[in-house]
Amino acid sequence: MAALAPDTGRAFVVGVTGPPGAGKSTTVTALVRALRARGERVGVLAVDPTSPFTGGALLGDRVRMQEHALDDEVLIRSMATRGHLGGLAVAAPQALRVFDAAGCATVVVETVGVGQSEVDVAAAADAAVVLLAPGMGDGVQAAKAGILEIGDLFVVNKADRDGAQPLVRELRSMVGLADRPPGAWKPPVLTTVASEGTGVPELLDALDRFRVAQAASGDQARRRLQRSRREVEGLALATLAGRLRREGSAALDDLAAAVRDGGTDPYAAAAALLARTDLR
Amino acid sequence: MAALAPDTGRAFVVGVTGPPGAGKSTTVTALVRALRARGERVGVLAVDPTSPFTGGALLGDRVRMQEHALDDEVLIRSMATRGHLGGLAVAAPQALRVFDAAGCATVVVETVGVGQSEVDVAAAADAAVVLLAPGMGDGVQAAKAGILEIGDLFVVNKADRDGAQPLVRELRSMVGLADRPPGAWKPPVLTTVASEGTGVPELLDALDRFRVAQAASGDQARRRLQRSRREVEGLALATLAGRLRREGSAALDDLAAAVRDGGTDPYAAAAALLARTDLR
Repeated sequence: MAALAPDTGRAFVVGVTGPPGAGKSTTVTALVRALRARGERVGVLAVDPTSPFTGGALLGDRVRMQEHALDDEVLIRSMATRGHLGGLAVAAPQALRVFDAAGCATVVVETVGVGQSEVDVAAAADAAVVLLAPGMGDGVQAAKAGILEIGDLFVVNKADRDGAQPLVRELRSMVGLADRPPGAWKPPVLTTVASEGTGVPELLDALDRFRVAQAASGDQARRRLQRSRREVEGLALATLAGRLRREGSAALDDLAAAVRDGGTDPYAAAAALLARTDLR
Repeated sequence: MAALAPDTGRAFVVGVTGPPGAGKSTTVTALVRALRARGERVGVLAVDPTSPFTGGALLGDRVRMQEHALDDEVLIRSMATRGHLGGLAVAAPQALRVFDAAGCATVVVETVGVGQSEVDVAAAADAAVVLLAPGMGDGVQAAKAGILEIGDLFVVNKADRDGAQPLVRELRSMVGLADRPPGAWKPPVLTTVASEGTGVPELLDALDRFRVAQAASGDQARRRLQRSRREVEGLALATLAGRLRREGSAALDDLAAAVRDGGTDPYAAAAALLARTDLR
């Protein structure tokens, strides 16, 4: 990472998130195709929900992005949502940094956007694309998914299906209701049929416009500073967590049993755990 | 919490998780109705995805469980997935402990089961119920949701709809494929139409059988020990995180800017951050 540092900061990171079934993989594949047509090197980071038992990502590199699997200028990496030191908030930026230093002009991060950490990763991108599709439940369900407020661009995929236009209208109405300062970016609501490539050039154009606007306003630099803050803080915390685990492991068994059996409360147990280490 | 500790350890905690649209709220409402018919006091903890901007839960106590809202013997609490000291893994057990000490024989935890932390909370219950419904995408989508491996009981809700029986067969086949020791609990696959109460008594019976089996085998005690371990460790880490934030805040701004601009790498920055505090 020290060696890579001077070569970072050039890639534009696009987060694509949305509920399962919205067509994220298809849209990312189409987006990568459009970026490759410009001759750019592209990185793809796919964040999968983790199997709680195996600790591995449920879908691997191999089953996704088959169209681009043999293209040397498309770098693809899958990452599970757990099992990383410091969690996804730390692991994802490290992977992005490698893509960045490897010369990817654009890196697309694909996450399943219902869990909070996945939403955080998408929101930490330079541009957050929220992908929805008609027929996935009503507006309350969309709000439940917690992804409406983070979008810099909204895309209604599968726009040839029934219900696409009402969903577009609903999203435009919600975007229109939000308070924003004069001159601030107003998230557009685009439509695509990603499986046919329809609407993808327009999505790319909108991303370009957003990039230029963000760089000019200083918002990109501010957002990247926040991302770096979280990353550094996350790594420092991961270091502390490792020490706590090593130094406190023996004490933790007794303390946890006492909590389970009602002999003490968890706050007192946590204080006792810290008292057994040099971290207190 | 110290005062509550002696009165805890009696409640049976049932986690209900599944993708958005599976009918979790309806099923939990029906389950509570059945538990109330036994005369038991019941607790309900509903975990909502958080709005990244407001920090609040997107659905509150008020819009859910209207049927039970006026029943003094049903205690309901909504909780957002972020904004809690130490995260959901710490906050949820504290809420459960209050329900437990308040004399709830059963506490139902409802989470949207796509994000990892939500899955973790459901998996940490005494019994994890995974709720699915037909028409929500194929098996790969279900696997993507990362919830199939955690289920102690599977429920196909909306079982009167097309596609319910194929989903039941697919789940039974997946459950049958799993390796488990002789005599171990084999997760049943049940069907419900929660909106009409159909299948809910059978779900309650299965939960009772599971509870007895888990208590007899010692698995319940082992699982609760793990839950307490995570909780104590999480609280200790939250304490350290608070100290890092207070003591390292000024240094973090400079270090994050250096990382963003390629002047240093995040690992070196994290080490420098710890060096500025007493936590190193």
